[in-house]
Amino acid sequence: MITPVLLCGGSGTRLWPLSRKSYPKQFAALIGDSTLFQASAARLSGPGFAAPMVLTNSDFRFIVTEQLAEAGIDPAAILIEPDGRNTAPAVLAAALYQEKSDPDGLLLVAPSDHVVPDAPAFRAAVQAGVAAAQNGQLVTFGIRPTYAETGYGYLELADAPGAGAPRPLALTRFVEKPDTARAEALLAAGNYLWNAGIFLFSARAILAAFRAHAPELIAPVQAAVDQGKPDLGFLRLAPEPWAKAADISIDYAVMEKAENLTVVPFAAGWSDLGDWDSVWREAPRDARGVALSGPATALDCDDTLLRSEDDGLELVGLGLKNIIAVAMPDAVLVADISRAQDVKQAVAALQAKPAKQAESFPKDHRPWGWFECLAVGERFQVKRIVVHPGAALSLQSHHHRAEHWIVVQGTAKVTVDDKVTLVTENQSVYVPLGAVHRMENPGKLPMVLIEVQTGSYLGEDDIIRYEDVYARE
Amino acid sequence: MITPVLLCGGSGTRLWPLSRKSYPKQFAALIGDSTLFQASAARLSGPGFAAPMVLTNSDFRFIVTEQLAEAGIDPAAILIEPDGRNTAPAVLAAALYQEKSDPDGLLLVAPSDHVVPDAPAFRAAVQAGVAAAQNGQLVTFGIRPTYAETGYGYLELADAPGAGAPRPLALTRFVEKPDTARAEALLAAGNYLWNAGIFLFSARAILAAFRAHAPELIAPVQAAVDQGKPDLGFLRLAPEPWAKAADISIDYAVMEKAENLTVVPFAAGWSDLGDWDSVWREAPRDARGVALSGPATALDCDDTLLRSEDDGLELVGLGLKNIIAVAMPDAVLVADISRAQDVKQAVAALQAKPAKQAESFPKDHRPWGWFECLAVGERFQVKRIVVHPGAALSLQSHHHRAEHWIVVQGTAKVTVDDKVTLVTENQSVYVPLGAVHRMENPGKLPMVLIEVQTGSYLGEDDIIRYEDVYARE
Repeated sequence: MITPVLLCGGSGTRLWPLSRKSYPKQFAALIGDSTLFQASAARLSGPGFAAPMVLTNSDFRFIVTEQLAEAGIDPAAILIEPDGRNTAPAVLAAALYQEKSDPDGLLLVAPSDHVVPDAPAFRAAVQAGVAAAQNGQLVTFGIRPTYAETGYGYLELADAPGAGAPRPLALTRFVEKPDTARAEALLAAGNYLWNAGIFLFSARAILAAFRAHAPELIAPVQAAVDQGKPDLGFLRLAPEPWAKAADISIDYAVMEKAENLTVVPFAAGWSDLGDWDSVWREAPRDARGVALSGPATALDCDDTLLRSEDDGLELVGLGLKNIIAVAMPDAVLVADISRAQDVKQAVAALQAKPAKQAESFPKDHRPWGWFECLAVGERFQVKRIVVHPGAALSLQSHHHRAEHWIVVQGTAKVTVDDKVTLVTENQSVYVPLGAVHRMENPGKLPMVLIEVQTGSYLGEDDIIRYEDVYARE
Repeated sequence: MITPVLLCGGSGTRLWPLSRKSYPKQFAALIGDSTLFQASAARLSGPGFAAPMVLTNSDFRFIVTEQLAEAGIDPAAILIEPDGRNTAPAVLAAALYQEKSDPDGLLLVAPSDHVVPDAPAFRAAVQAGVAAAQNGQLVTFGIRPTYAETGYGYLELADAPGAGAPRPLALTRFVEKPDTARAEALLAAGNYLWNAGIFLFSARAILAAFRAHAPELIAPVQAAVDQGKPDLGFLRLAPEPWAKAADISIDYAVMEKAENLTVVPFAAGWSDLGDWDSVWREAPRDARGVALSGPATALDCDDTLLRSEDDGLELVGLGLKNIIAVAMPDAVLVADISRAQDVKQAVAALQAKPAKQAESFPKDHRPWGWFECLAVGERFQVKRIVVHPGAALSLQSHHHRAEHWIVVQGTAKVTVDDKVTLVTENQSVYVPLGAVHRMENPGKLPMVLIEVQTGSYLGEDDIIRYEDVYARE
């Protein structure tokens, strides 16, 4: 059995406005109906695969559980990194965690924000690497390059891989990201593959490699795992030792130095969706190169990506060439496709304004569900609040606002001071200023409630929490 | 005294998504803070000008009164055209209406969707035409062309107008919209001006011209005015005779045939804002030709117009050249600037979908104020409703929905069955399914209310009206 190790703590900005720091691209449905994280988890499930281990950070932990539940996947463990320290400490933590139960168990480490359209072909490639991994090899998966990409590292093989079913080959060395001329030479040579950052090995083999090539990482990461705190189904790695681990990638720390390397070539389609250009390449396109998503209309356009991320938002492109337009109700990006790599400049410009759209979405995900602001006016605000079945908001009060709650779906259990009532569809409750109150969803279906706040100050920080099942302050 | 006659019944689509059939461009703030209609009314006010006469249609009548009130302008009359029949019947109706009180009074007829940055210069040009108009001349205002525009008609003068203050000149003839080569020749010749569709004449003089050149229009339009019905401050022209008037422009019907023509040249800046290209030309631009409006950011763009029409909507352009991007929360247009004339194709494509954004805005204007939908879900809808001071919604009931009302600003007088209550900020009312109810604003300030509807059917047509001060059915 192979345990997938899904890395999903990253928060790229090159796919802004769809990918933002508070809810990055792995959690978005960039290609198809599932999110990239869900598709990654599903791709590494079924016969031969154990339940996955997930490495993420504290901000994303409830998004991870929500998306796994939605996809019907039950994780073996969710490890919370106190802060992002690149892939080497994360992989080491996963291996140390695995070692406790089965040191010879195989781990398949994979990013959770890539797209691999042919999942069965990918699983076949993984199977092709199993014997080598069981023999102590560190197996990587190398993507057959289709153009001279400068954004990836390359893997050098002794010979060009043949056609036919994937089989393990000896890896000569890792090649760092090349410049354009070098990338073209590598592409022409035929014996170079893209390094996709996907690995298969036993916990024992990768731990031996860490001890040999990056021994300074062992102590802090071991301590972070051993002193980690279980919290509502997550394992929070201990922050103090974790902070002492170097911020370094698995490639630099281990792979570029190891000798026991094997590569399985993979040619059935892969993309890291690193920018809007690659999303355009991976999306279904018409004969003129136009890719549409959501309510988008192209009139006389060529080589253009038009994405509307909201059912109620009509996006129309007219006479465009090489343009990317991504429309959301709170932010719109229009860029020349050749500038896809520079979208981070757009994010930086919005951060400088400052505009909240740089990092946040209108929808705010919380442990108990999510809320969004529907309207803000002078002295009032309207929110839609969705509470998961069985979930509860904290017991709280506010100094500056009263709240009207109208349940529009499901049933709420509402506490206002010492009165507890069940409130169902088309019923309302008034929470006076200062009243101690709580909202719970005792039911089996999501509960949706419209909250109308009135008062002189309506900030999220006007809150006194008396009790919180999620241990927030 | 000159009576301005503002024509504002048009509904162009070339400035979609900002201009839509339900709320066209004259009512939008395209350049500056006032709407084009407000700016047009303000431009023709002050010393020498009487209160304006407005010609519009039934759909826009409350927008007209609202925008005039906001601008502090009290109209002399608002004539409602039963349907749009081009400018000749509209001008004739205005002249016949004026004839009743003062046949020698001067009328200044102007579209209300043009932009004239230098209002004092324009008023000086109008004054320069007064003597000629008092002498029975039909005075037009001709714009000094700045490029070879093919979208306008031209006015031919005997000689090129000199520099200096505008003065009345003899007009040789009207020239129809030219092709490109002809437009360039007219521009080079120097004695041609753009026909801006702005006229100054006495009621007596224009009526004489109609009798001479378009006598068939007189009877139906006279009947439409004479049988018109006063309605809440509007004069509704009688639909039956009106329908018999030909759909024809004042230029074709009268001007191209008249002999008593005078033109006053005007060179201080004018645009009909006929498409997004001309909006870009009229807007303040930086050294690279970038014009921004609202929360819009341009990174490395040239000759580009970026407009966000909502404070909460960040629009970012990256590496664009010759692009127009107009973003609204429900619709986004991205077009090559050279295709500005084809925006109507975008509207046609959305009409074909069909998408409501082709013609309507989220904000729905009503006689009593306006409302917008904030959220729609299964079996519920949330609206923001704004009621003008002194205004009242109809007395009504619904078969399929109950309503929760929460007042967030001002005071509402609420009727539910036989109970009438005053409801103020932070108070709520429940209107059960089937209850006969009415909402009024008895105060001096706008009343804002959040309405949460729940029920199996939430369409606007589930309404039984018992009483309506606006005589709707």
